[in-house]
Formats: sequence, C-alpha cells, structure tokens
Amino acid sequence: MKDNPKRLEIIKAYADIIETRGFEGASLGAVAQQLSIPQSLIFHYFLNKDDLTVQTAEYVAELCLHSYDRAWPKRGDFSDASFHTLIDYILEVHRNRRRTISPRLYFAMIYLLPRQKQVMQHFCDLTDTLVTRLSEALGSFAAAGIIRTESPELSARSLLCLADGILCYEDLTPPEARAAFVATQKSLFLQSVDYQPIVSA
Amino acid sequence: MKDNPKRLEIIKAYADIIETRGFEGASLGAVAQQLSIPQSLIFHYFLNKDDLTVQTAEYVAELCLHSYDRAWPKRGDFSDASFHTLIDYILEVHRNRRRTISPRLYFAMIYLLPRQKQVMQHFCDLTDTLVTRLSEALGSFAAAGIIRTESPELSARSLLCLADGILCYEDLTPPEARAAFVATQKSLFLQSVDYQPIVSA
Repeated sequence: MKDNPKRLEIIKAYADIIETRGFEGASLGAVAQQLSIPQSLIFHYFLNKDDLTVQTAEYVAELCLHSYDRAWPKRGDFSDASFHTLIDYILEVHRNRRRTISPRLYFAMIYLLPRQKQVMQHFCDLTDTLVTRLSEALGSFAAAGIIRTESPELSARSLLCLADGILCYEDLTPPEARAAFVATQKSLFLQSVDYQPIVSA
Repeated sequence: MKDNPKRLEIIKAYADIIETRGFEGASLGAVAQQLSIPQSLIFHYFLNKDDLTVQTAEYVAELCLHSYDRAWPKRGDFSDASFHTLIDYILEVHRNRRRTISPRLYFAMIYLLPRQKQVMQHFCDLTDTLVTRLSEALGSFAAAGIIRTESPELSARSLLCLADGILCYEDLTPPEARAAFVATQKSLFLQSVDYQPIVSA
C-alpha cells in the first residue's frame, strides 16, 4: 500500500493545496477536484482526513531528510572544502530544497506540531536523525583538525537552530540585507567551533 | 472604533480559537458561539473574516512588541547585569511571554505571512522596530565596553534569529537537553560580540 502510486498522488496533491491555500483551504473536496477523482477514492487509501494529514507529514519529513543528501561529506572527505559545503548547505537548507519542499509547506507542518501528536513524532524522529548524522560529521571534522567542539551534538543543534532562525526571518529581512545576515550567522557558528580559515601560502 | 471593548473582545476570542484549533477551526461561527453573540455583530466591527484576521495579526504584533518591555535596559544602565537580563530575556522571549502570546499563536501568524500581505506588513514593521531598539541597546553596551560589535544591527538580527531558532526546536529538543541547548545558543552569541565575563576580584 505504501508504494501505491495513487496514494502518493493524493499525498502530493494534498501537500500542494496546503502550501498554496493553507490547512483551512485543504479540504478533501479540493484534493478530489485537483486530481479529478471521486472523493470516496481517498478513503480507499486513508482512514480519514487526519490520517491523510499524518501520512503527508511523514512524507514531508522524509523529503526533509533526503534534502540533506547533497550536504553530507563524501566518504572520508573531511577537508576544509567539504566542511564549508556542509555548513553553507545547512544554513540555507530552506532555499536549497525549495524545489522539493517550500518553506511554506515546512512552516505549515511546524504549525501543526502542537496539535497533532503523530505529526510531532515524525518531526521529532527527523530531528533526532539529523542531529545524529550532523554530530557524526562535525565529530569527524573535529578529528580532522578543521574545527574544535566539546560537544558535536550541541554544535549540531546550534547549526540547525540557526538554519531555522534564518527561515523565520526569510520574509522579515530586507532582501538587500539578507546576504550579510546569513554570513553573520555563519561566522557565529564558525567562531563557536573555533574554525580557523586555512590561508594558502 | 479601535478602542471599542467589544471589538477587542472579538479579536481576543478569535486569537484564542486560532491557538487551540488552528485557522482551519477558527470560523466566525466559533467566535460568535464563544462570545454568545450573533454572528452579524462581528460584521459591525470587521468588514469580513480577512479583515478580522489582519486586525488580529496587528494586535498580536503589538503584544509581541510590548512583550519586550521588561527586557530593555533601564535608562542609562548599561551594566553587565542589565546586559545579561537583555540577552537572557530575548533568547527565551517565547517562554517569557507565554502568558500573553503562546508560541502556537505566534507560529500561526508566521504561517500566515506568505499568504496575507497585510499580516506580513505588520510583522515586517514589528521586526524593524525590534531590530532598531535592540541595535540601540547593543550599541550602548558596546560604548560601555561590555561587548564589541562592528555592526550592532547584524548582532541584533543574530540574537532574534537565535531566539526564533530556539522556538522552532522548542518541541523537538528533549526536555532534559534543553537547558544546555539554550546555554549553547547564548554562548554562541556572547562569543560573536566578544563578551568578556567580568570576574570579581
């Protein structure tokens, strides 16, 4: 059932409608209309609207996780360059993955968290996985002498915190001030992990 | 009209319903029911539901601004203690103001931003005002030798960014890890403004 293409199509349509019209506009009728299917077909794949919402959250959480795939250092490459690739990618993850998950859709999910326990669980799991992978990467960069950190886990949480803070100010920062703002967040992080830029001779 | 108590009562009831049931549950019928008034009375004060939403956003933005009142240093007091009061208050602003604005209500507004231009405008104005006041305060602490910053404005934006990042991870950080997480964000900020703790002799 999980790999059923129609099921996925319904989830994608629902996510699409949440993104453009918000939850208040995301009715099952709107989903059926967008896909030109009878509304009853939705109940073939989902118990009810809540079930569709929870499964959509799970789908979005998976997309979120995969959206970091390009950020992780390639096997054994804990160089200065791959460190910057990682940090730059994560700080701007919301822009970098715009094609797959819009910031609007992400915020819609965050907004749902306190009212939907299962959605919360999917996003807690996502955070745990991300923190673990990022801690491992930062630990390896520390072992390679690129950075120093007493707690790779806290450094990982800080970086993710900065990325979400940047997202919160996405629309509230004047466009001409944005680059300096993001650069400042990066230098905040670099300073916290005692990064020393490598100056070529 | 702005100071009309019935108008404010309707706004507060609507905000209350958004907080508990989300926008998708916040109908005018629910507002009327909660206040035991006929729905038609709402239209005496608001053009339509969108107008109520925009005016509620304006009300929430004003509450947000006032929620910082206790943070600002008292006239001329740019001491080490008042610096910590400011930073601690802002990093935990979402907890500190919980009684007046719940994080859920705040997120509901952030979630609305991209789809409601006027709501966006109220929150852009709020951010501008906050950044200006915070830059002035940080500038004064720099002048008093407590910190160093090349750009009080960028330092101000960083602090607000960290506070919103902390909010994003509010529900996604295990409770036992939270204090260390927030302390790490604070030390990130202190390091970025070259804060030197004053050690008493």
